[in-house]
Amino acid sequence: MIVNEQFSSKILERAVSEIAKLPGVGRRTSLRLALHLLRQSDSSVHALADSLIRLKEDIKHCEICHNLSDTNICEICSNPLRDRSTICVVENVRGVMSIENTGQYRGLYHVLGGVISPMDGVGPADLQLQSLVDRVNAGGIAEVILALNPTMEGDTTNFYIARRLAESNVKLSVLARGVSVGDELEYTDELTLGRSLMNRTELRP
Amino acid sequence: MIVNEQFSSKILERAVSEIAKLPGVGRRTSLRLALHLLRQSDSSVHALADSLIRLKEDIKHCEICHNLSDTNICEICSNPLRDRSTICVVENVRGVMSIENTGQYRGLYHVLGGVISPMDGVGPADLQLQSLVDRVNAGGIAEVILALNPTMEGDTTNFYIARRLAESNVKLSVLARGVSVGDELEYTDELTLGRSLMNRTELRP
Repeated sequence: MIVNEQFSSKILERAVSEIAKLPGVGRRTSLRLALHLLRQSDSSVHALADSLIRLKEDIKHCEICHNLSDTNICEICSNPLRDRSTICVVENVRGVMSIENTGQYRGLYHVLGGVISPMDGVGPADLQLQSLVDRVNAGGIAEVILALNPTMEGDTTNFYIARRLAESNVKLSVLARGVSVGDELEYTDELTLGRSLMNRTELRP
Repeated sequence: MIVNEQFSSKILERAVSEIAKLPGVGRRTSLRLALHLLRQSDSSVHALADSLIRLKEDIKHCEICHNLSDTNICEICSNPLRDRSTICVVENVRGVMSIENTGQYRGLYHVLGGVISPMDGVGPADLQLQSLVDRVNAGGIAEVILALNPTMEGDTTNFYIARRLAESNVKLSVLARGVSVGDELEYTDELTLGRSLMNRTELRP
């Protein structure tokens, strides 16, 4: 049976189609969101629409670390209180936010924009790798912390960066791999557990 | 510990806040969606934003049935092929879409815009009830099918409509209540099972 009048409104149908293009949003959720917006005030729907356009049009990438920024140089790179001798290399802005949320890091960042992934057609030239090498070679950097996601692609990228920075004599480190705080050993995968055993740290009483 | 630089960009933060106002969208999902949009083309983000504004500004309610419509009279009410002697009363546009999706109904609709719910402060005057009575009193209607959600509020509203239409001599019906097709009796609640037993239909071999 052909259902040809499911939507009584083309305007509604178009909005539902557009919202459903968002990742993880199906047509049913999209309809629910569209009907929700219909019940909101004009100004709140305009605020949402405007924030999306501003997001796309006005946001910049920091010229130094390539993090998302409202200005040419981001707040972190332009903050005189940050330690300028340490660079933490992350995949994307979420990496920056995750590290910032720990409250444990006061250095600068370098946002690669991804990791090397031949399967996805992402090579070194697609990432902000040369500019990382340039930053290190410009001097004044004591340590580069590699904080990519603990995946095969992340490890490959770590290895590539290590090779590119081999001659610079900068100290290189990676995030410790190990069991999560609060996790149960029973549910930790063997690879992680094996690494955490290999890299066990001395307990000082 | 105060995390004061979680967002490196106020523009990003604003977009994340706006998206997170949508029902069922948390801050983490909102960030994921915002970063997704940043990777999309200018035109696709504009298409999304524009569809939301058009949705809010251009959509109308059909003057006859109050369904969402692009025109003053909706496609269903203005379709000469529909049976004009039957009105199906639904809560909202989702009710219309659900019934249309069955492909079993060729009559008209009446969208109440909700159900009577004293708990939520919704009384008869807040709904399109008078216009339903007017439509029936104008004549030419043989049957009114009440297809509200099978909740206490839906039942209350059914009862209210039945009283209001008592003098019109129009035939009133409600959707059959019973076990879902494909459901297992074991998992059907007692109320539904009891009703489906009371309203059992004769099996004609």
